[in-house]
Amino acid sequence: MTSALLDTKALESVLDEFAQARNWRQFHSPKNLAMALTGEVGELVEIFQWRTEEESWQVAHAPETAEHVRQELADVALYLVRLASVLGVDLDAAIRDKLVLNAQKYPPL
Amino acid sequence: MTSALLDTKALESVLDEFAQARNWRQFHSPKNLAMALTGEVGELVEIFQWRTEEESWQVAHAPETAEHVRQELADVALYLVRLASVLGVDLDAAIRDKLVLNAQKYPPL
Amino acid sequence: MTSALLDTKALESVLDEFAQARNWRQFHSPKNLAMALTGEVGELVEIFQWRTEEESWQVAHAPETAEHVRQELADVALYLVRLASVLGVDLDAAIRDKLVLNAQKYPPL
Amino acid sequence: MTSALLDTKALESVLDEFAQARNWRQFHSPKNLAMALTGEVGELVEIFQWRTEEESWQVAHAPETAEHVRQELADVALYLVRLASVLGVDLDAAIRDKLVLNAQKYPPL
Repeated sequence: MTSALLDTKALESVLDEFAQARNWRQFHSPKNLAMALTGEVGELVEIFQWRTEEESWQVAHAPETAEHVRQELADVALYLVRLASVLGVDLDAAIRDKLVLNAQKYPPL
Repeated sequence: MTSALLDTKALESVLDEFAQARNWRQFHSPKNLAMALTGEVGELVEIFQWRTEEESWQVAHAPETAEHVRQELADVALYLVRLASVLGVDLDAAIRDKLVLNAQKYPPL
Repeated sequence: MTSALLDTKALESVLDEFAQARNWRQFHSPKNLAMALTGEVGELVEIFQWRTEEESWQVAHAPETAEHVRQELADVALYLVRLASVLGVDLDAAIRDKLVLNAQKYPPL
Repeated sequence: MTSALLDTKALESVLDEFAQARNWRQFHSPKNLAMALTGEVGELVEIFQWRTEEESWQVAHAPETAEHVRQELADVALYLVRLASVLGVDLDAAIRDKLVLNAQKYPPL
């Protein structure tokens, strides 16, 4: 028995209940969720666009950006897990398979 | 004791070892990882752009797209978890806090 | 003599003066401008994410979104032209070449 | 009489004929074109993600990336102009208005 690398089941349930309680399931087509994911990634990227790479290390600690970056990372995670969920994709299994492919494509030094 | 909604610890370790074994840590600044996340989301979105909402429900089951969509979802997850990891953000805690905010902003019907 | 398909010269000059007058050139590396372009596209996409394809035809006419969509389209255009400009890419020539490639790849019916 | 900052009319005509000749108008809803724009921006960003800001200045001149970056910039321009076109938005007027707003928001030094 292997444990998950990224267990999304609890969060998937919470998100489905959240959507159901607001009558949002009608909006949560995969196409729409992929767009929403894009929008949230755009908001995350905006935090970094005028910062240098060196400055980018501080955004989660600097008081003026810390909470913002946490919220945007969370938003991306929420839409990603919701999208995988409505598509019926086991994200943990997909990640495991992709890591195998990546390790073949990019062997360790 | 509460269990995690999204436990990323195992995957964070795997990704850090993966980067270290390839001397990739030098490239994995938060700024760069945010860009890489964007690129992967772009590849995911391309699967959906010419499909209708109705057709979008089938992409994870249709043989010509199923594997592709699994891989792109995995890539987005990998960069998201890696980005949170290098920033030192506890993604599970960030998600819990954001869900509270979302529930306040959008009360159930 | 052929006239341009997309003449960006006047706008390039305006944008360079705008950046210079605000001491922004230091921030306008191609990498940063590519991120800013992403962020603006994210804001544009957010207008469409919960709308159906049919509804999406109305966003430039509906009073609650018309001005917003104009502004986001403009922002994307501004960063695209600025990015091409700092890279020294002749966007009109690039477009002409790409249209030739596209016509070869996708012959008319 | 003022001349355009960004005259898109010639390109709009070419793109509409291109779409009509391939029976693509059915796919070119604003929602879909916004997604396609996202996908192309994602491909553009991928060129920059592992490069430093300093290295990013070279991508349009370095032989291994010059043609790629030209093509991706062109793709973004094509979808942006097509999106504005199907929405009936005068991109030149939108840009002029946005520049006025930007100048008010960010006065010169």
